[in-house]
Amino acid sequence: MTIADRWLLPDGMDEVLPPQASRMEELRRALLDLYHRWGYDQVMPPPVEFLDSLLTGTGTDLDLQTFKLTDQLTGRMMGVSADVTPQVARMDAHSMKRQGPVRLCYCTNVLRAKADQHQGGRSPVQVGVELFGHAGLEADLEILHLALASLVAAGAGEIHLALGHIGIYRSLVQAAGLATEQERALFEALELKSPGELADRVAECVSDPALAGMFMALGRLHGGPEVLDEAREAFAEAPAAVGAALDQLRALHRGVQVRHPEVEPYFDLAELRGYQYHTGMMFAAYVPGYGQALAKGGRYDDTGRAFGRARPATGFSMDLKLLATLALGEPAHDGVWAPAEGEGLHEAIAALRERGERVVQALPDQRTGPGEHRCNRRLERIDGRWEPRSL
Amino acid sequence: MTIADRWLLPDGMDEVLPPQASRMEELRRALLDLYHRWGYDQVMPPPVEFLDSLLTGTGTDLDLQTFKLTDQLTGRMMGVSADVTPQVARMDAHSMKRQGPVRLCYCTNVLRAKADQHQGGRSPVQVGVELFGHAGLEADLEILHLALASLVAAGAGEIHLALGHIGIYRSLVQAAGLATEQERALFEALELKSPGELADRVAECVSDPALAGMFMALGRLHGGPEVLDEAREAFAEAPAAVGAALDQLRALHRGVQVRHPEVEPYFDLAELRGYQYHTGMMFAAYVPGYGQALAKGGRYDDTGRAFGRARPATGFSMDLKLLATLALGEPAHDGVWAPAEGEGLHEAIAALRERGERVVQALPDQRTGPGEHRCNRRLERIDGRWEPRSL
Repeated sequence: MTIADRWLLPDGMDEVLPPQASRMEELRRALLDLYHRWGYDQVMPPPVEFLDSLLTGTGTDLDLQTFKLTDQLTGRMMGVSADVTPQVARMDAHSMKRQGPVRLCYCTNVLRAKADQHQGGRSPVQVGVELFGHAGLEADLEILHLALASLVAAGAGEIHLALGHIGIYRSLVQAAGLATEQERALFEALELKSPGELADRVAECVSDPALAGMFMALGRLHGGPEVLDEAREAFAEAPAAVGAALDQLRALHRGVQVRHPEVEPYFDLAELRGYQYHTGMMFAAYVPGYGQALAKGGRYDDTGRAFGRARPATGFSMDLKLLATLALGEPAHDGVWAPAEGEGLHEAIAALRERGERVVQALPDQRTGPGEHRCNRRLERIDGRWEPRSL
Repeated sequence: MTIADRWLLPDGMDEVLPPQASRMEELRRALLDLYHRWGYDQVMPPPVEFLDSLLTGTGTDLDLQTFKLTDQLTGRMMGVSADVTPQVARMDAHSMKRQGPVRLCYCTNVLRAKADQHQGGRSPVQVGVELFGHAGLEADLEILHLALASLVAAGAGEIHLALGHIGIYRSLVQAAGLATEQERALFEALELKSPGELADRVAECVSDPALAGMFMALGRLHGGPEVLDEAREAFAEAPAAVGAALDQLRALHRGVQVRHPEVEPYFDLAELRGYQYHTGMMFAAYVPGYGQALAKGGRYDDTGRAFGRARPATGFSMDLKLLATLALGEPAHDGVWAPAEGEGLHEAIAALRERGERVVQALPDQRTGPGEHRCNRRLERIDGRWEPRSL
């Protein structure tokens, strides 16, 4: 085996070198501080759980993305966390058992067995927030605003917001009485965004002509806020839940307009990809130059039911690794270069560090100098005192 | 399956709830800031690597502790990182390729297939520093001082420092020409700290009476600095490397005395447990009330050899989860409780958060109040202005 082979890393399992790692740390702090100021308490979900717990109520996509391990202590199958959100929902439902709204945030490594089509890496650092215990639109709006504030904190300029609602598709599927396989075929046709494919599937699966028309409309309904008006018309005869979902989207739009007039939402009523356990409004935030969403979230009520408490839930998450590339610059040369030895030197160095200064001390016979170690000053002994002097 | 079963977590795979998670975040920041001030650059090693890379040159203990996964993309075996130190050594040797001393730090989750006898959990958060490219004692001393500074930063009062040197045992083994099995038998007898067991093994394996006496001395030589004088005598006829190792320990002792006179080192020349890849001085720092070492490190030269560059290396690491229990207190009630709605309310809340205040906004029909959400003030409208008032 050659040296290059030994160091080849598995696809999507990256190392992060300086200065990118510091940039990620900086952004991690900025985001967790932001969530703290909004009243969100930090939690750390378990990195590994028994598979039964980990995948309860989350659907097959997450199953496929989860690395499986055998627990040598019990012989039971365990899974490495691939998505923190359902774990946090269970912590709220089972471990915390608080009454009323609970706001939680996290920033932690997850692992994915395969990279999903929207996200490059298999080792994202998932950062996000979850708001439990409130079913109202105010909670969704708080989450939406916090997602936008997160992107601004990360250095995003122009932000594109896509809004949808899983309730529209779900209600139509229910009204049409579709079997699981039929539903999957329709779902795939909608994902492909191919009108011809969709027409074929609808013709196969949906006998009621009014409902067939609504499924076809679903494939067309994406664009600016005018889509909501078109939808009102197209879904006039739809189940009441569809109208309620449209009302929610309209209200979210108004809420965003008030506080973020610079963000013009895009509506896509058939966008369902990557939302695995959602039950209500869903959103994705994009920044020009990135093909994938930088923040993604929505409402996912009752995930905790299997763990003792069905609770309303809404939240979003991001990949810190991706996000940290938004505002990456070269780090400043800021530090004091100190010699290897000298009288009273340790005390002088300790005092500088105490004041928050970065001090790199030379080691005996060292050949590299202050420049290689990002120092812009040098500690010199002047009149018996150690003083940092500009280089 | 009952609800309790579903939520049972695998042994040693813990979740961290508020306020402990915030305490860990606080300590993470304090430590990484400390390392930054000492000139250490942050890195993030890959969470998963191909097994060939991960275990090259690290010994069997790490192999047993490493969770194995199959890469679905290549069919190759991968391992989840169980110890960051050898990974960082390879990043220095292969990815960074810098000349001269390189100082790196990290703070990251690792997973262990089984808890080792000294550390409770299987999901520690490993935090530490590594100094590459300098073989001198000054580098070891910097690492030792930084370990002590880390424990002080974490809130440790009294610190007990244990110092040893793998070179003494290795040199005696080499001089005695022991086979691998004989070495293992002796190693286990030394670990057991049982003089009878040790005498039996030495009688079996070591024919030279002078060397046999030295192995027996090794089992006795632990205690205060006087141990170094006793060792000088006991190892007078030993290979030169033993004398050099004793000189190093003496110099480290002097170095610690100068800057940390309150720390009285304990010497144990036969303490070998838990040091898997070390080549020189080794240390462990203890705090009363904790059975296990809170910081552990030492010199481990040439780990990067298989990856293209043999480099001197010294460093230490800690478990942030354990460390954060040192100074755990109840979090202060500090925050402003805001009503669900009101004129100009959003702007008032945004301004408070901009100033760094924690503001928790009530959601409509919420039954819990400021106390449950750790708020000590309430936002009230007074003369047309929103003002935080003490509760």
